[in-house]
Amino acid sequence: MTLEEARALDAADPLAPFRARFALPEGVIYLDGNSLGPLPHAARERITATVEAEWGTRLIRGWNEGWMEAPTRIGDKIARLIGAAPGEVIACDSTSANLYKLIVGALRARPGVVLSEAGNFPTDLHIAQGAVAAVPGAALRVVERDQLAGALTGEVALLLLTHVHYKTAERFDLADWTARAHAAGALVLWDLSHSAGAVPIDLNAAGADLAVGCGYKYLNGGPGAPAWLFVAERHQAALRNPLSGWMGHAAPFDFTDAYAPAPGIRRWLAGTPPILGLAALEAGVALMLEADPALIAAKSARLFDQMAAAADALGLEVVSPRDPAARGSHIGLRHPHAYELCQALIERGVIGDFRTPDVLRLGLTPLYLSHEDVARAVAILAEVIETRAWAAPRFAARKAVT
Amino acid sequence: MTLEEARALDAADPLAPFRARFALPEGVIYLDGNSLGPLPHAARERITATVEAEWGTRLIRGWNEGWMEAPTRIGDKIARLIGAAPGEVIACDSTSANLYKLIVGALRARPGVVLSEAGNFPTDLHIAQGAVAAVPGAALRVVERDQLAGALTGEVALLLLTHVHYKTAERFDLADWTARAHAAGALVLWDLSHSAGAVPIDLNAAGADLAVGCGYKYLNGGPGAPAWLFVAERHQAALRNPLSGWMGHAAPFDFTDAYAPAPGIRRWLAGTPPILGLAALEAGVALMLEADPALIAAKSARLFDQMAAAADALGLEVVSPRDPAARGSHIGLRHPHAYELCQALIERGVIGDFRTPDVLRLGLTPLYLSHEDVARAVAILAEVIETRAWAAPRFAARKAVT
Repeated sequence: MTLEEARALDAADPLAPFRARFALPEGVIYLDGNSLGPLPHAARERITATVEAEWGTRLIRGWNEGWMEAPTRIGDKIARLIGAAPGEVIACDSTSANLYKLIVGALRARPGVVLSEAGNFPTDLHIAQGAVAAVPGAALRVVERDQLAGALTGEVALLLLTHVHYKTAERFDLADWTARAHAAGALVLWDLSHSAGAVPIDLNAAGADLAVGCGYKYLNGGPGAPAWLFVAERHQAALRNPLSGWMGHAAPFDFTDAYAPAPGIRRWLAGTPPILGLAALEAGVALMLEADPALIAAKSARLFDQMAAAADALGLEVVSPRDPAARGSHIGLRHPHAYELCQALIERGVIGDFRTPDVLRLGLTPLYLSHEDVARAVAILAEVIETRAWAAPRFAARKAVT
Repeated sequence: MTLEEARALDAADPLAPFRARFALPEGVIYLDGNSLGPLPHAARERITATVEAEWGTRLIRGWNEGWMEAPTRIGDKIARLIGAAPGEVIACDSTSANLYKLIVGALRARPGVVLSEAGNFPTDLHIAQGAVAAVPGAALRVVERDQLAGALTGEVALLLLTHVHYKTAERFDLADWTARAHAAGALVLWDLSHSAGAVPIDLNAAGADLAVGCGYKYLNGGPGAPAWLFVAERHQAALRNPLSGWMGHAAPFDFTDAYAPAPGIRRWLAGTPPILGLAALEAGVALMLEADPALIAAKSARLFDQMAAAADALGLEVVSPRDPAARGSHIGLRHPHAYELCQALIERGVIGDFRTPDVLRLGLTPLYLSHEDVARAVAILAEVIETRAWAAPRFAARKAVT
């Protein structure tokens, strides 16, 4: 695609005005919004207001003036992005902590095996290891993706899947796998970290049971933003939060010695809500709610095709599915020196990331990326490949994080 | 104490310059810093820099430029406030989540009874209930304070105490109770939420094992600031985090399926660190480190004496100990209509809080309160008591939070 062709697509793009809603640094083409979304201008304003007008001025009174309801208020907004009902989602803790709470909560209601996929995002498997240790009779079974269907036997109490794979962008059919789990007598816990805000999701249409997701990727909630969790209304009375902290108590300010869970989704709170992080997250979610998910999906597919065509031409293996319905909103490109390639791109202002052992991961986020951005990134990628710029010795010393 | 006498004390107060380091709203005397500390100007600046120069400009690169180390970097600063060594403290999650992690971690290493105090801060007891359910053979025993010594029998594996009581400000002798627990073969987990930054603490001199604390009270880290935890170096290899998330992994970016804990304090991380909250907390902690703890203790004692003398004169029962070494940095005043009294004070710009059923709680925070503030608050308290202003019908409708 030529720069002129890309600009023509941008001129016709109904999402193009969203780009101005974000702070995007000069000289950078940001293909890592699937790891950390950029700063929405509204988040900056919301944080300043929270710091100055709330913390700085109202002080402790802030708890009576909106802070206490922030987890459910923001949860209700996230619910609209993922096909959940009001009162089914709450913003709290980290994805890891939320996974622990829901896995233990689900297993205590029905002990058995947690089934998950080898190569799932590490924290999902790591937390599942810790969670099964908290429930007598529970165990974790991890199998390759193509063995999941056969492993979904009667001992399985909970199927733990990440909807969109963090590395390859492969997407499970949410409704289909939910139905398979139910047919086997299991619940499903979906990790939507790489899909909420990226692909259309309708949890209730799929009959989903439980879900978690992070706030800092496609929801643009800032570094280490609070995460969130979903519990279908029909499961809310039966499941209990093992992190039975005071904020999930039915009456936190009665200060009773005995724990009694709040009746609805609030029981999944543990400690005091992180107000600064929630402020940024709320602005990010509100911005995402302004965009039509169908437009996001269509543009994501176009950006992918543009990058995939370039990868094909450069001889890079595309590890992500070609079918838009079978993937998320990033592309994984295999290269034997993917780490060094990623560093060479960053040096030239194209920010993607590396995922071990050999994948260059590029986020194709429709809200703020243009076809011109991708065309420019493609030109730089071509230059780095064709000149072997990635082979420079300075890229050989790896850092821990990319 | 007359206003003139108060001003004379302020003129001689070596901590007086700290007041200008905080945003304190006009027309408010803030006696609730023991619940939520006010905004340090440095925190505002640090948050703005984190939003603009880090998230907004450096984007994902922020993780390689200071974010990844924030939990341990801030932990090391908090360590200096509580007599811990570098590498023994980490800033993460909420106090509730940290209590869960340490209680389960300690009980798995040595199963048995968790002993705690009736009327302890609710989340400590609530979380302990949840934590013992995760460890076979564990149980929670809750007794009145005066029964603790007798209940510290051989079955007790963990003594769970809050150093300074959230309502009465009663303070346990940290070294004495640590020694008692050790003599009984138990570890101690100290909740320092109401004491870190308020009273002198030397965990390692006391031989303490484990501790947690919050960031939003005397550390002035902002609403819902990240909390922190302490694990004495000698226990670090043996104790494991039940919330075994990827950030506590020995090599998080190796993306392995199997969890392997980081060797030191980092194993107590679970999810991605909350960078906005950590930024504010770091500024608050740095400010507290500038102040001499001996000066803070001395001024806290003077402010308490000033308020207690007024309470005595007004016939209000002081529920906090008169001996400064036996209490924290707030004062509890008993009144049959403490809730309404608190509301009448807030209406007049004196912000304290109410703790059920009958305690007016006033924070006496030396870093930004003057003797003149307390003298003015005393005058308003006297007016409210003498005119029975608290009896106005509008105060009868209670809110959930105060």
